[in-house]
Amino acid sequence: MAEVQYVHGYSPRETERLRDQANSLSALLHDTVRYARGRRVLEVACGTGAQTVFLAANSPEAHIVSADISPASLAQARQKVEAAGHRNVRFQVADLFDLPFDDASFDDLFVCFVLEHLPEPEKALRAVTRVLRPGGGITVIEGDHGSWYCHPHTELATRTVQCLIEVQARLGGDSFIGRRLYPLLAQAGFADVRVVPRMVYVDDSRPDLVEGFSKNTFIAMVEGVREQAIALGLMTASGWDKGIAEMYRAAEPGGTFCYTFFRGTATRP
Amino acid sequence: MAEVQYVHGYSPRETERLRDQANSLSALLHDTVRYARGRRVLEVACGTGAQTVFLAANSPEAHIVSADISPASLAQARQKVEAAGHRNVRFQVADLFDLPFDDASFDDLFVCFVLEHLPEPEKALRAVTRVLRPGGGITVIEGDHGSWYCHPHTELATRTVQCLIEVQARLGGDSFIGRRLYPLLAQAGFADVRVVPRMVYVDDSRPDLVEGFSKNTFIAMVEGVREQAIALGLMTASGWDKGIAEMYRAAEPGGTFCYTFFRGTATRP
Repeated sequence: MAEVQYVHGYSPRETERLRDQANSLSALLHDTVRYARGRRVLEVACGTGAQTVFLAANSPEAHIVSADISPASLAQARQKVEAAGHRNVRFQVADLFDLPFDDASFDDLFVCFVLEHLPEPEKALRAVTRVLRPGGGITVIEGDHGSWYCHPHTELATRTVQCLIEVQARLGGDSFIGRRLYPLLAQAGFADVRVVPRMVYVDDSRPDLVEGFSKNTFIAMVEGVREQAIALGLMTASGWDKGIAEMYRAAEPGGTFCYTFFRGTATRP
Repeated sequence: MAEVQYVHGYSPRETERLRDQANSLSALLHDTVRYARGRRVLEVACGTGAQTVFLAANSPEAHIVSADISPASLAQARQKVEAAGHRNVRFQVADLFDLPFDDASFDDLFVCFVLEHLPEPEKALRAVTRVLRPGGGITVIEGDHGSWYCHPHTELATRTVQCLIEVQARLGGDSFIGRRLYPLLAQAGFADVRVVPRMVYVDDSRPDLVEGFSKNTFIAMVEGVREQAIALGLMTASGWDKGIAEMYRAAEPGGTFCYTFFRGTATRP
């Protein structure tokens, strides 16, 4: 596939962030994702396997193939899945634009946090459809960084998130992909398209989400583009640091934090 | 109470907008709002009764008192409720900051789309608490205009919504009230505070919401501040009209539309 830079990088902290994200959100994102015995499921661009462990756990009798273009990420994914004791996943180095599988050889596709990073998400959907059998299903899960807001609302905190959106855009991605899932799936030729928002709302009464989502997933993700944002002149270092501090303020008692993921399901006609 | 200007005005179109809003959203907002036989329920600032008809229908054996500071609005509310055939609502002209009811004379309070218009929402909550018996419950429903976004995302459409937020702020209101419900209820002394987001997500597959929410509720509400926004110099007339046209574009096939209401419940200790 065309070289696509991953906006969040590949550092150990990023690996940890992906794990925290997956743990705190697994119930919300995976609650209806269940594949029956014998279903052949392809997880497209599994990365380091943050979602793979939940797929494997929730569909123990499905045959899952998790593919990624990066052998290093795939090695981490394999390690996670083996550590969790799952034996229903096979790993495969693969470019999603040129999948090494026969036409119509899968019953289901699972695509999570992938399209947001691609300059041509519709083209990606069309490419992976080839390996899905007619009548088979696709599940796509994406976030939408424009859906974030917090209390207290502040201009600088909002600007740090806009920096993430801008940096991702310069890498060819689309931070507003969640709200686009319905038209994307429809335009890629799928039928029975259904999109549901999966909103994360965090207040004092949900301390697990304060840590697992607000701080360790979302703010950590924004913090990850600090150097790029400052180097691009999008914000000054002091403005950035103040904005991040204000975002942490919204994760303190009395603050609230909102973000919405979108899950689309559809069928290949 | 201190004079508070109602940002949306009192025109016939506004009355119609409130009715469309209530119809398309009643299931989402009222789904768990049920009061048992004999419960004494006060609806605070019922306005023209857009929510009153659902309250009355969903809790037929409760004794509902719907109060508002405006006799004209109250007359419309009474007309709506009588036309719907409900006999469980009594109407009362009342200032919410000086309610003409005995201490602890209600089992439940219902407050919907009220706090967003008040300069001191916490003071309002404290004022109405007096008439709620200890152990009684409060339900507060508010929107959050900062939660709105659409696809295709455009700068001008976003700016028209920011005009609504700004005009409402100049009138002393807070368009970001939804995300504040949890701390507001906690700081006003309530216990067992629980807030749930009620998100409206609209795409081609939901034509009733395209009409009832996107166009006739939300865009209509934004359009209502056109003259004020232009008079205040927040946008030019041509920029405004282009922004509104782009917002209507998001209500066409291929577009999507998102907005989140928040519902808080709590108990008087």
